Amino acid sequence: MKIDNVEVVVCSPGRNFVTLVVTTDDGLVGIGDATVNGRELAVASYLRDHVAPTLIGRDAHAIEDTWQYLYRGAYWRRGPITMAAIAAVDVALWDLKAQAAGLPLYQLLGGRSRTSVQAYGHAQGASLDALVDSVQSLLDQGFRAVRVQVATPGFGAGYGVAAASAYEPASAGARPTEETWEAGAYLRHMPTVFERVRTEFGPELAILHDVHHRLTPIQAARLGKSLEQYDPFWLEDVTPAENQEAFRLVRQHTTVPLATGEIFNSVVDYLTLFSEQLIDYARSAVTHAGGITGLRRILDLAAVHQIKSAVHGPTDISPIGLAAALHLDTAIHNFGIQEYMQHVEQTAEVFDVGYSFADGAFQPGERAGLGVRFDRDAAKRYEYQRAYLPVNRLVDGTLHDW
Amino acid sequence: MKIDNVEVVVCSPGRNFVTLVVTTDDGLVGIGDATVNGRELAVASYLRDHVAPTLIGRDAHAIEDTWQYLYRGAYWRRGPITMAAIAAVDVALWDLKAQAAGLPLYQLLGGRSRTSVQAYGHAQGASLDALVDSVQSLLDQGFRAVRVQVATPGFGAGYGVAAASAYEPASAGARPTEETWEAGAYLRHMPTVFERVRTEFGPELAILHDVHHRLTPIQAARLGKSLEQYDPFWLEDVTPAENQEAFRLVRQHTTVPLATGEIFNSVVDYLTLFSEQLIDYARSAVTHAGGITGLRRILDLAAVHQIKSAVHGPTDISPIGLAAALHLDTAIHNFGIQEYMQHVEQTAEVFDVGYSFADGAFQPGERAGLGVRFDRDAAKRYEYQRAYLPVNRLVDGTLHDW
Amino acid sequence: MKIDNVEVVVCSPGRNFVTLVVTTDDGLVGIGDATVNGRELAVASYLRDHVAPTLIGRDAHAIEDTWQYLYRGAYWRRGPITMAAIAAVDVALWDLKAQAAGLPLYQLLGGRSRTSVQAYGHAQGASLDALVDSVQSLLDQGFRAVRVQVATPGFGAGYGVAAASAYEPASAGARPTEETWEAGAYLRHMPTVFERVRTEFGPELAILHDVHHRLTPIQAARLGKSLEQYDPFWLEDVTPAENQEAFRLVRQHTTVPLATGEIFNSVVDYLTLFSEQLIDYARSAVTHAGGITGLRRILDLAAVHQIKSAVHGPTDISPIGLAAALHLDTAIHNFGIQEYMQHVEQTAEVFDVGYSFADGAFQPGERAGLGVRFDRDAAKRYEYQRAYLPVNRLVDGTLHDW
Amino acid sequence: MKIDNVEVVVCSPGRNFVTLVVTTDDGLVGIGDATVNGRELAVASYLRDHVAPTLIGRDAHAIEDTWQYLYRGAYWRRGPITMAAIAAVDVALWDLKAQAAGLPLYQLLGGRSRTSVQAYGHAQGASLDALVDSVQSLLDQGFRAVRVQVATPGFGAGYGVAAASAYEPASAGARPTEETWEAGAYLRHMPTVFERVRTEFGPELAILHDVHHRLTPIQAARLGKSLEQYDPFWLEDVTPAENQEAFRLVRQHTTVPLATGEIFNSVVDYLTLFSEQLIDYARSAVTHAGGITGLRRILDLAAVHQIKSAVHGPTDISPIGLAAALHLDTAIHNFGIQEYMQHVEQTAEVFDVGYSFADGAFQPGERAGLGVRFDRDAAKRYEYQRAYLPVNRLVDGTLHDW
Repeated sequence: MKIDNVEVVVCSPGRNFVTLVVTTDDGLVGIGDATVNGRELAVASYLRDHVAPTLIGRDAHAIEDTWQYLYRGAYWRRGPITMAAIAAVDVALWDLKAQAAGLPLYQLLGGRSRTSVQAYGHAQGASLDALVDSVQSLLDQGFRAVRVQVATPGFGAGYGVAAASAYEPASAGARPTEETWEAGAYLRHMPTVFERVRTEFGPELAILHDVHHRLTPIQAARLGKSLEQYDPFWLEDVTPAENQEAFRLVRQHTTVPLATGEIFNSVVDYLTLFSEQLIDYARSAVTHAGGITGLRRILDLAAVHQIKSAVHGPTDISPIGLAAALHLDTAIHNFGIQEYMQHVEQTAEVFDVGYSFADGAFQPGERAGLGVRFDRDAAKRYEYQRAYLPVNRLVDGTLHDW
Repeated sequence: MKIDNVEVVVCSPGRNFVTLVVTTDDGLVGIGDATVNGRELAVASYLRDHVAPTLIGRDAHAIEDTWQYLYRGAYWRRGPITMAAIAAVDVALWDLKAQAAGLPLYQLLGGRSRTSVQAYGHAQGASLDALVDSVQSLLDQGFRAVRVQVATPGFGAGYGVAAASAYEPASAGARPTEETWEAGAYLRHMPTVFERVRTEFGPELAILHDVHHRLTPIQAARLGKSLEQYDPFWLEDVTPAENQEAFRLVRQHTTVPLATGEIFNSVVDYLTLFSEQLIDYARSAVTHAGGITGLRRILDLAAVHQIKSAVHGPTDISPIGLAAALHLDTAIHNFGIQEYMQHVEQTAEVFDVGYSFADGAFQPGERAGLGVRFDRDAAKRYEYQRAYLPVNRLVDGTLHDW
Repeated sequence: MKIDNVEVVVCSPGRNFVTLVVTTDDGLVGIGDATVNGRELAVASYLRDHVAPTLIGRDAHAIEDTWQYLYRGAYWRRGPITMAAIAAVDVALWDLKAQAAGLPLYQLLGGRSRTSVQAYGHAQGASLDALVDSVQSLLDQGFRAVRVQVATPGFGAGYGVAAASAYEPASAGARPTEETWEAGAYLRHMPTVFERVRTEFGPELAILHDVHHRLTPIQAARLGKSLEQYDPFWLEDVTPAENQEAFRLVRQHTTVPLATGEIFNSVVDYLTLFSEQLIDYARSAVTHAGGITGLRRILDLAAVHQIKSAVHGPTDISPIGLAAALHLDTAIHNFGIQEYMQHVEQTAEVFDVGYSFADGAFQPGERAGLGVRFDRDAAKRYEYQRAYLPVNRLVDGTLHDW
Repeated sequence: MKIDNVEVVVCSPGRNFVTLVVTTDDGLVGIGDATVNGRELAVASYLRDHVAPTLIGRDAHAIEDTWQYLYRGAYWRRGPITMAAIAAVDVALWDLKAQAAGLPLYQLLGGRSRTSVQAYGHAQGASLDALVDSVQSLLDQGFRAVRVQVATPGFGAGYGVAAASAYEPASAGARPTEETWEAGAYLRHMPTVFERVRTEFGPELAILHDVHHRLTPIQAARLGKSLEQYDPFWLEDVTPAENQEAFRLVRQHTTVPLATGEIFNSVVDYLTLFSEQLIDYARSAVTHAGGITGLRRILDLAAVHQIKSAVHGPTDISPIGLAAALHLDTAIHNFGIQEYMQHVEQTAEVFDVGYSFADGAFQPGERAGLGVRFDRDAAKRYEYQRAYLPVNRLVDGTLHDW
């Protein structure tokens, strides 16, 4: 099974996606997701201009060797662009291998470890009332776990809260929108938010919240302490984690479960967080962390420390990236939860998926391989649209983590 | 693919083996090795009396779930008997899955990462001259790496040295043979041994040596220092490693590469050794460390710390266990070397293997699955023979690690 | 005093037991317990097929040498099967030695350190009311310390709670029963449980609770924090402890005393827990941790760190194993408490015990040796019945620690 | 001073370079280097398609804000592509600011801290004799510090050794060349190399050597021990450093100075290496580590631990990147040494430089700004040529660090 052709397709059915299409000499087609939200064309170039020529003629079965070839062979390793490019190749090759085996991918990863893959949805509101409505709407769709994000009064929409009805972080245009942030107001507001949601929906609802890297370690510790009584399922990205040791302080002060890792792309990014038991959920995406090969290693190491998976899954993870996550979620032992933000309808015109969602949980589907079919003709109808994630500033104009 | 039948066969074609045979409702037959040298019937009972009834009707594809079912579900986990039993089931299920996929097992583990799997052989001698002959004989067979074991003058044959021409540690009879050990004589003798072998065969020969847990940490440190100038490929099991911290002292004093782990059966046994970079080669057997599923996790964690594999492979690892090792060796990135001690001819009557050895290296073979066929009729001709590993005593009679 | 005969008896007077009977040339009979709940025949085989032949003719007084012979001499050491087999031999030899000395065993272990051995009983209930009745019933029997286990509403009986009136975890049949677990519901329920029991029985009752390895470290920390105000005597097995470092996180967040170790079988399993003062009670059984010789060393090391004993004692520890525990409990300095779950009546037909229980505490009895007489004829009336411990799954089907 | 225009130019005068050209509304032109060897077009896309539109209209003086805007605002941070893009913008803005101030850049960085910037050159040879000639040739050019790289007999040219007379790692063509590596042969050869060079050139020559990430930690420790007597100036990249803790082992065994960091791009990559004093020289390039702003912070933190600079400077660092390094080298206190590999003549047609080299040391020059003028018309004559760094394999075909 030799690689015969490698194509990179950038399309925008509702939002931008970078898709890698790998064809073998025996006619199989494997696909991978390389979308890096707001930096799509750089990954497309990385793949098209540098990686693709080196893949032609290679054994499509040699996944591990190809991974190392692209990781060590690039010399300049790690980082979001490089690791998304590697992920796309890796997932396409796993798709091919599972198709060659005539099995859904999760079977090659060790088989089924659970009956379904529980997901959490995104609830949001400009006000507490709007948030409550949004949570109710997710419950009506079957979700049993919701992430709650709400505007801090006086500070605009805030992270995770849409201007219009559909929340979508990347915005089209020549430059990012700029938002405003003030930690004090947020820290004072959040207990009210949790109290309201907990009161409204009772003790069983799994309530998640994403701080999105906006607090210092001591602020994060304070937030954890103040929310503990409302029994959060987790707090996510409470403080920037490049310097993993920052989480030690948070951890000393609260037993609220912590999740982090969506901007990580290597097992190295997690070594201290894991070995010192500083987090409870590892949140890297298949698409950003070197594919099935990369993420499986991260999650296996997490398991040694009883840390669970919570694979990143907003809409900028394409249906291919989501399918890859679902196969991994189904197979690994230390699955925790899967993020799920529904793609818009146009996306379905381009990506015909084999997975399904019902009662708050996914099935990866039983098609051989990943189970996603990519329609290149449909993709051509949706041209790339430049779009950016917002940036964030403090009230005095200081650039802050978004 | 449901499990239809599970059978445990104990046979002795040259030496004892415990083989698990798992049959599915679609007629596939998967096999696993559960041999624990000198404790064979206990594993056979563990599998036959306790594990086998729970497997009937299970999905043969659900390898991870079955592994956890046998590990966590047993409640009393870890240890050689339990983990060998789990390994046998795990390897049989991987064999079945790869056959169902129509692929050699290494393809399911990520595909080929190298052209062949280098092995080291066992050289030994009652004298230095005999040792040199033994090394030459291995070189003539194509080996480029040899383990050298030689009698310490005045202390009998010693570990790894045969009484007769064929070295085989397990001896038949009502009880173990008892050997004698004196660390001082050994420590004084070993530099002579390495000097002779290095002088005789030149700088390129990979010379390995197995201390077999017989030294204290400070003695081990001294041995390392005294042999460093002869450039050993590694020293193995320089001191007992249950308390992993014992290796810190050794490591402070010598840069001789260290290998350990053949009596380990869980990733937990390695956590300190790996995270503090105390060893260079992880030596667990597929057969003793929970199968492909268990050992792969150990080796993946090793890779984070640049530690390589050196899978245990004496003759008490059956051809099934060796085949499993070879598929893993072929697929993983951090392969180091494979131990190889040839099985006697009778073994081949029972186990028809798909792997091959030439020029000092293995090919796992291209048969679907593990590639080993187990002949139950032939097995019946070789009844189990009780046999024991030797025990070891100091000159004053103190029981010592063998 | 040479060993003349070694016999392994598996019987099921109410539940399965593996008993080792060692006879000496001067006619003494020593007995040991080798029961591993749900894996009985594997230990029986280990002893009968591999260990017994090596014991014949050995000096029955040479307990330490025999222990090392079976531990280091087996080469493949540690683990539940191996260590239970060693324990049975060790206890039988101590029984013989004490009989030969004409003294109850505790006298050989250093003599009496306390007037009696306080035990805790198992209270349980499908509801809080039933639990309160169960506690009262234990108090009426004289217990001053009770372990409380109660069903989590909506999740079946739960660990430690019987379907019928007699609670017995191992269930007969072809395979384990499967239970369901949800940490969130449990964590919300437990403060109510402790509040009710504390309110009902006042501040002096010693209330114990067994989490049975079902929480992650951060969940365990939260549980500890939430129960601290109710002054638990201890929380047991709050999280899996193979990776001992997991207890560091728990320990940072709560001063609730912690107990662990019933699935450990070596002093090595405790090294970090002890040296970093991460637990307060060491819970290994004589039967599973290498006998009197093995457990005494564990408890001696515990004493260095002011950690106390709390020897495992459910009904799968046979009266022999319990008697051994009681002699050790009587003699050591750092005794904490003894678990006690009464055997059913049939058990007494096979095992005639010298120990006695009154006012919540044991006396080991003054018979020479262990003080337990094993009736082989009675044993024959109770044939081995295959039985399994349950397994546990999360609501999504993921295999979880039971 | 608003940014008016941003242009990305990819050219290949001798080798590929990515140049960012930033024009302000008052007519100043600032330039930055974004070359990532072998992945040039991906950085070009990152800049052109994603970064450039966001810069138009921004205050060119706001360097810090722009750095944070591109780092935190990208959300997906770190990695070679992202940080090279940020570096190019950062250096262009520093160039503009210094031009606006009418001062050479080093003056804005704190002014002159030394009279000149010592550099080391690259000596190399297919044989020891050829290496000696190459060293002599560098001495003749005025160098007082040389990096020595030589072929390991039997293993091709090896890292840092050219096939032809000019050594240039990136090779044009559809895919990377594949080299072969064997650590044993290399480790045996290196003492001979150092002995010869030291003997030939006396005790005062600063001899550097680059291991290029090819050894495991224990091999690196051994190399250090074996070369210590020849007084190396440093050993570079002795082992992969993603997991910084790997250097602890090396450091225990040798006092040979260690340099690393050319593939790092963030201060986070160095935290353990610095705080535990594990290296002596930090080797990141201005071009790869986020520009003047990024690298200055790395070197400031290095200074806290008495660690010195050794800025990466092979030919794939364009004259712009080299000029930026020289200004920084001139201004900081903890300068160590500067790498220098001369660009070929065509490069000078495109980049007119203000810096100068004499007697083994650089002057940054006194032109305002960086002092480099980029000739866009000349650049057009040299079209981008796809080229790759080589990859490296062990003799058995395993992909190894190059």
